[in-house]
Amino acid sequence: MLPAEVSIREVGPRDGFQNEPETIRTEDKLRLIGILLDAGLRRIELTSFVRSDVIPQLSDAEEVLSGIEPRDGVVYSALVPNLRGLDRALGFTDKLGEVSFFCSATESHNRANVNRSIEESLGELEQAVGKASDSGLRCVSVISVSFGCPYEGRVEPETVFGIAERLVAAGCDEIGFGDTTGMANPRQVGEFFVAASERLDGTELTAHFHNTRGQGLANALAALEAGVCSFESSFGELGGCPFPPGATGNIATEDLVGMLEEMGIDTGVDSAAVVRASAAAQEILGRPLGSHVLTAGPVDWSGPEQSPEA
Amino acid sequence: MLPAEVSIREVGPRDGFQNEPETIRTEDKLRLIGILLDAGLRRIELTSFVRSDVIPQLSDAEEVLSGIEPRDGVVYSALVPNLRGLDRALGFTDKLGEVSFFCSATESHNRANVNRSIEESLGELEQAVGKASDSGLRCVSVISVSFGCPYEGRVEPETVFGIAERLVAAGCDEIGFGDTTGMANPRQVGEFFVAASERLDGTELTAHFHNTRGQGLANALAALEAGVCSFESSFGELGGCPFPPGATGNIATEDLVGMLEEMGIDTGVDSAAVVRASAAAQEILGRPLGSHVLTAGPVDWSGPEQSPEA
Repeated sequence: MLPAEVSIREVGPRDGFQNEPETIRTEDKLRLIGILLDAGLRRIELTSFVRSDVIPQLSDAEEVLSGIEPRDGVVYSALVPNLRGLDRALGFTDKLGEVSFFCSATESHNRANVNRSIEESLGELEQAVGKASDSGLRCVSVISVSFGCPYEGRVEPETVFGIAERLVAAGCDEIGFGDTTGMANPRQVGEFFVAASERLDGTELTAHFHNTRGQGLANALAALEAGVCSFESSFGELGGCPFPPGATGNIATEDLVGMLEEMGIDTGVDSAAVVRASAAAQEILGRPLGSHVLTAGPVDWSGPEQSPEA
Repeated sequence: MLPAEVSIREVGPRDGFQNEPETIRTEDKLRLIGILLDAGLRRIELTSFVRSDVIPQLSDAEEVLSGIEPRDGVVYSALVPNLRGLDRALGFTDKLGEVSFFCSATESHNRANVNRSIEESLGELEQAVGKASDSGLRCVSVISVSFGCPYEGRVEPETVFGIAERLVAAGCDEIGFGDTTGMANPRQVGEFFVAASERLDGTELTAHFHNTRGQGLANALAALEAGVCSFESSFGELGGCPFPPGATGNIATEDLVGMLEEMGIDTGVDSAAVVRASAAAQEILGRPLGSHVLTAGPVDWSGPEQSPEA
């Protein structure tokens, strides 16, 4: 019933770095991405082509793309907010395999995020998806606040599926569902993805959870049980919506991989190696990160060489 | 398939307070317990009758029991390590409804914990359970490292069930299974409890998880799905084995209750009210606690009165 293997897109270099108060130096970003690649991650969202005055933390998008080396079997992606961002991304079709778009499930959140109605966003996304596809890029769209909205409360799955169908019709190969402010619970997640896989048969469905209320991995488990085998996560538990202060954002890649590894589900990723990236990020940022496996280490089933009474 | 209601034993006043470097004043303990009772918790492990020189943090066990008021529908318990501890607990049969015993699933852990073989521990526990039952106390035993041992690695469920059967035969009404160092994963937990409920039919089976590697609530979900409807947790994420420094211990009561509430499973507990106890403990202890709901607040489905564009 559980999938034998799971695909993980590492979003820390975009979602994580974007949410840090201090801009991380490009050379540090490239070093961290290198450690993540060495850990076995094969899908990495490298940056976002946003306006520098809006998100200065990612103003080096071109430098990151220029500095990254293609690797066999690795698919790089970038987040693209609009047609203007897409034009910048199209300068790197030699490096990028995927572009990610986004839209909110509620009018209030979409308005707060991009100052547009959902219909306005979808209109531009439909154009952008067509253009990106024509350039050979695989298209992903993430629907924010799919499981609950801080402004509007409950979100009807039908509303989310309707937006997803529009994006699939426009040419998206994959739809991500974001629990942007950590409001989802496992029962809801399970029911959502069972229904989503019926409605969106043939499309890759990706789960993006936050650990805001400690339920991040429980929601991932519920998604797994509903047949989801594609996840987004962020090394070190970086990023997400770290609000209020101290709240956690995305589920940590090493925590997700640790759980999947222990459950016998193949990810191709080495959680202990991801921890090396998180430890390096912790040093660069000068503050402790929220990842659990970073603190506790992966499970060691061997036990110590000497038992305590020896 | 999921249970309609779940019983939670709050173990923070024993497991949490015991693991604090500073001893909490008895009056503060009683105040925190009062807030927990007001939050709707109906099973509370108040303290442990251990030697004061071993665990000075709980040297006020008699004062706590003397200071606590009986409440309708509330079952107080105390942890009892041995016959000597039981004799102290028997002075409070007017207050206590339950006593909890413990034993490890592996020889190395039991030796490290109480410097005895499992057989020696079981021998004394069998006597103690008999004596406690004769005095009208309901008997609970928790088996530590049931899902993995830091000294011996994997633990065979058959070994754990064998110990459990001995304790049930001695008169225990309830067996708890502790993931003492946070090594369990959801697949293992699900399979464990399905097998346990066959082997130990008629006994209350309780799950006690730690959030050491972020999988605490995922393991709770797996246990729920396997039919478990009795849990132990600790407000504020206090207690457990907080090693290495920064590692989390028990799952937080408010995080567990928050997940269950959102899933529509009745606990009788108000997570927002548990947060008040955790906030008070945070103030007393002078350090931030690990609970997620304490930081982020419970889910607010109403949304703000004004949407952001208003």
